[in-house]
Amino acid sequence: MTEVDVIRKARSVKEASGVLYTSTTAKKNSLLKAIIGCLNSETSAILSANKIDLKNAQHAGLQAVLLDRLTLNEQRIKHMIDGVHDVIKLPDPVGRVIEKTKRPNGLLIEKIRVPLGAVGIIYEARPNVTIDASVLCLKSGNAVLLRGGSEAFHTNKKLVDIIKKALQDVNLPAGCVEFIDTTDRKAVSVMLKQEKYLDVIIPRGSQKLISFIQENSVVPVIAHGEGNCHIYIDRVAGYLTAEEIVLNAKTQRPSVCNAAEKLLVHEKIAAKFLPRVVQRLRQAGVEIRGDKKTLMIVKDAVLAQDDEWYREYLDLIIAVKIVKSLNEAVCHINHFGSHHSDAIVTNSKSNGERFLREVDSAAVYVNASTRFTDGYEFGLGAEIGISTQKLHARGPMGLIELTSTKFIVHGKGQVRK
Amino acid sequence: MTEVDVIRKARSVKEASGVLYTSTTAKKNSLLKAIIGCLNSETSAILSANKIDLKNAQHAGLQAVLLDRLTLNEQRIKHMIDGVHDVIKLPDPVGRVIEKTKRPNGLLIEKIRVPLGAVGIIYEARPNVTIDASVLCLKSGNAVLLRGGSEAFHTNKKLVDIIKKALQDVNLPAGCVEFIDTTDRKAVSVMLKQEKYLDVIIPRGSQKLISFIQENSVVPVIAHGEGNCHIYIDRVAGYLTAEEIVLNAKTQRPSVCNAAEKLLVHEKIAAKFLPRVVQRLRQAGVEIRGDKKTLMIVKDAVLAQDDEWYREYLDLIIAVKIVKSLNEAVCHINHFGSHHSDAIVTNSKSNGERFLREVDSAAVYVNASTRFTDGYEFGLGAEIGISTQKLHARGPMGLIELTSTKFIVHGKGQVRK
Repeated sequence: MTEVDVIRKARSVKEASGVLYTSTTAKKNSLLKAIIGCLNSETSAILSANKIDLKNAQHAGLQAVLLDRLTLNEQRIKHMIDGVHDVIKLPDPVGRVIEKTKRPNGLLIEKIRVPLGAVGIIYEARPNVTIDASVLCLKSGNAVLLRGGSEAFHTNKKLVDIIKKALQDVNLPAGCVEFIDTTDRKAVSVMLKQEKYLDVIIPRGSQKLISFIQENSVVPVIAHGEGNCHIYIDRVAGYLTAEEIVLNAKTQRPSVCNAAEKLLVHEKIAAKFLPRVVQRLRQAGVEIRGDKKTLMIVKDAVLAQDDEWYREYLDLIIAVKIVKSLNEAVCHINHFGSHHSDAIVTNSKSNGERFLREVDSAAVYVNASTRFTDGYEFGLGAEIGISTQKLHARGPMGLIELTSTKFIVHGKGQVRK
Repeated sequence: MTEVDVIRKARSVKEASGVLYTSTTAKKNSLLKAIIGCLNSETSAILSANKIDLKNAQHAGLQAVLLDRLTLNEQRIKHMIDGVHDVIKLPDPVGRVIEKTKRPNGLLIEKIRVPLGAVGIIYEARPNVTIDASVLCLKSGNAVLLRGGSEAFHTNKKLVDIIKKALQDVNLPAGCVEFIDTTDRKAVSVMLKQEKYLDVIIPRGSQKLISFIQENSVVPVIAHGEGNCHIYIDRVAGYLTAEEIVLNAKTQRPSVCNAAEKLLVHEKIAAKFLPRVVQRLRQAGVEIRGDKKTLMIVKDAVLAQDDEWYREYLDLIIAVKIVKSLNEAVCHINHFGSHHSDAIVTNSKSNGERFLREVDSAAVYVNASTRFTDGYEFGLGAEIGISTQKLHARGPMGLIELTSTKFIVHGKGQVRK
């Protein structure tokens, strides 16, 4: 019975979270080291499990790009292990005092970081998330209930077995990491109702998956939504810098959420700026779409449909719009964008400052590529994802974002008057 | 049409939030001053509106305690005005840089506070919340959609009219504060589906209301749940201090969420400690319930039912349990408590530290009354409520908790390699 099984695992995670809540940094790091040991000794078993998933995926006719994401090899397992080493080196946020105040009545009040507790992670495709996400949760003192994509089922199951072996090695409860070992989709719906046992659910995947979870979860969600990212080329901008940034943001890795999807260009420079950047984008294989004004300059571009301004292509496509002013650019981005990452290219300090202030996105750039929105690039050391919501965490999420806080109050018998 | 009306107002709030997003502190303070002016000049109109609500409530047979909460008079309006003056004096969190890092590639990354955007507040009974909550939202740059309790309908409507007049006086959009002017309960359900327009919903009221909202909201929620607060008297504790803290936490204001509901006593001191504190509690009108061991010492106490250990009485009732150890106390609190506010009374430094570390509640105390869990008492200057969830905000919420963050990134043409 799927339902009973999911509930049992959620309860098991909650119980284990109580042990992790007070585990020392040394204890948590020893667990991470044990995971590295098991990943090393079980590499061939992981690859065998992965072969089953790959065979099934080929039978099912999975796209080449998805097959690639699913594939593990010794190199990729080594990369996973390097990632765990990196997390061991990161400072433990738990217990850190972030505010301290002494009240007139003598109460000493401290706000300290504590683990969130029990974290549910629902993800698709890439099996490395099983290790990356578990390790970040464990280091920050959280137990985790994993629901991976069905394509990677056997690989994920093997990876969780490895974590469980490591938990046993260091004498921590097996419930610290649980895995929903069914591909039945009902299991996700059951997970979303376990507010008694789960403190948060972090979904990573398609917008469809995330919307389903937001609409149906009783557990609080930290959504990792889509990135409809913009580059705006201001009236006064260095053309070469602008070209380099547009090329990089669009083509360096078009399938990710911080890649640019839209190019806004000030009308006074459009005729001069557009032809060359369009030529370079096309050389890189990018399809150009545009509004009517753009089509007067780039005559063979495809007319962008109205609803396309909301869309994330995740592909070698860019839509170009010519705007009358910085103000129009900001309004367009705030209205049509997904509030992920947006950039201005400008030589005007005041226009840059205005853009940074007025564009309401998780990351706003002056004269840099949107591709930098990433936990590693931002110096967090690791990331569990990129939040597109405003509550709790916004933008790249590292260890700190996997914590909550509590107030601890030292008194000497104070009572309230 | 309720539904259309609610959606229209949510959209209006969202639009206005764009203007508040970039409003200066001076502008927001001038609005707060205008609100004070209007509250002063319209005091008698507010009292007239309140009389209608009071008359309706008397007809409906509302309890005396609820009638008192509903009642406004000149003194209480003055108190409201004082509250607005206090918020004017508070520092504006918006724009504050909370993290700053220069990356090896030269990117300068700052994390700054920004308004949440559009905040929905769903509350019951007390009309002062209409002013308090609106003013805190406005000061932190947020527009607000209010849904008050039906008992205070006329008073709330008049108070919102006053805010709208003040908005007009300082030339800010009327949509900065909207009021759902129907007592139809369907309006709440519609509000919970406006994820397109609302960034967060803050419910304040009964556990039943909050559970309904958590289960049905697509908009992220910051829940203000119940407080099943504990006082644990350790084996080594000053009896007089312990008595004073128990008396204060239980009786100083029994109807609020930070009042104590449970008393845990170490078995080695129970026979000595309990009789006197029970006598003093009973003198203060408190009914004593207890577990079997307690009944052997307090023979005429009522036996507490199993499910009562989960309950918040909000009344002059306390349930006493005798425990074998600090460990049993901690486990009981983490299992049966509501993770709001819990205290230990002890002379042992190490036991105090253990309690602070192991009890997973929003506020944990050593040797002080739980009644201090409050934005004013914690020095936040004001509070919009007390969050009992772990995401985004936990414990008393002030202006900072009404903000989100964004990363602003200054580059010189950097692209990702």
